[in-house]
Amino acid sequence: MRRRILVAGKPALAFAAAGVAEYMKRLGRHGGCELVELKAGDPARVSRELLARSEGDYRIALDERGEALTTRQWEQRLSALEMRGDVKRVSFLIGAADGHTDELRAKADGVWQLSALTLQHELALVVLLEQLYRVATLKSGSPYHR
Amino acid sequence: MRRRILVAGKPALAFAAAGVAEYMKRLGRHGGCELVELKAGDPARVSRELLARSEGDYRIALDERGEALTTRQWEQRLSALEMRGDVKRVSFLIGAADGHTDELRAKADGVWQLSALTLQHELALVVLLEQLYRVATLKSGSPYHR
Repeated sequence: MRRRILVAGKPALAFAAAGVAEYMKRLGRHGGCELVELKAGDPARVSRELLARSEGDYRIALDERGEALTTRQWEQRLSALEMRGDVKRVSFLIGAADGHTDELRAKADGVWQLSALTLQHELALVVLLEQLYRVATLKSGSPYHR
Repeated sequence: MRRRILVAGKPALAFAAAGVAEYMKRLGRHGGCELVELKAGDPARVSRELLARSEGDYRIALDERGEALTTRQWEQRLSALEMRGDVKRVSFLIGAADGHTDELRAKADGVWQLSALTLQHELALVVLLEQLYRVATLKSGSPYHR
């Protein structure tokens, strides 16, 4: 099962770009993760494009109103998806500063939160990548997650 | 009411150090925030030192098992503390990789979560600082938080 992140906008904050590079490199040793940056802008257009680009994928929208899961629960949910066999790719969708539209949330297969707090969306991307790396180390039994 | 963050360990990840510097600078224009880095190490010793160094402060321990609040709720809680008048300083406590001891959680005035997910503790510091900056912009009415 491949993993992909669709995100609106390129990280403009230097520290966030460095954090993205750090975890993309680490994930490269754990099956990798594709990162697709869409043009930021009008939230309705961004949500439509996130949906269009993830057609056929198992869509997980990251949203502060989504389900609050622990790291172990992320690992269990993602492993369960992997076992199904009919999911070729999971796409994580991160909206722009104004978040996702109702339509996108309704069409997503899952709506998960990174935090109940509103996170700057570039920082949210770093948090997501660190979490995917943490899940990967859990699966491989390396001692990163305690 | 002054704000202080007590954290175990100096950021070793370059992107996290850069993120800390970014939001410390931004907070400088909103009343500032003191950042105290304690020596990392044995969790029991770290928790004892976090307690000792925050004696007399209103202590908020950051912990994934803590209360899940929204950004608006952080703003309301912190404003309410400010109105009380008897709170001279609020100290946010971030533990090392193994988290806080039960004793620290019991002695804290509040236990809040940044996320239900386990976050790398240097990344947690960046998330906390971004959130304090976000709360400050909410209070000052600047358009950062939407």
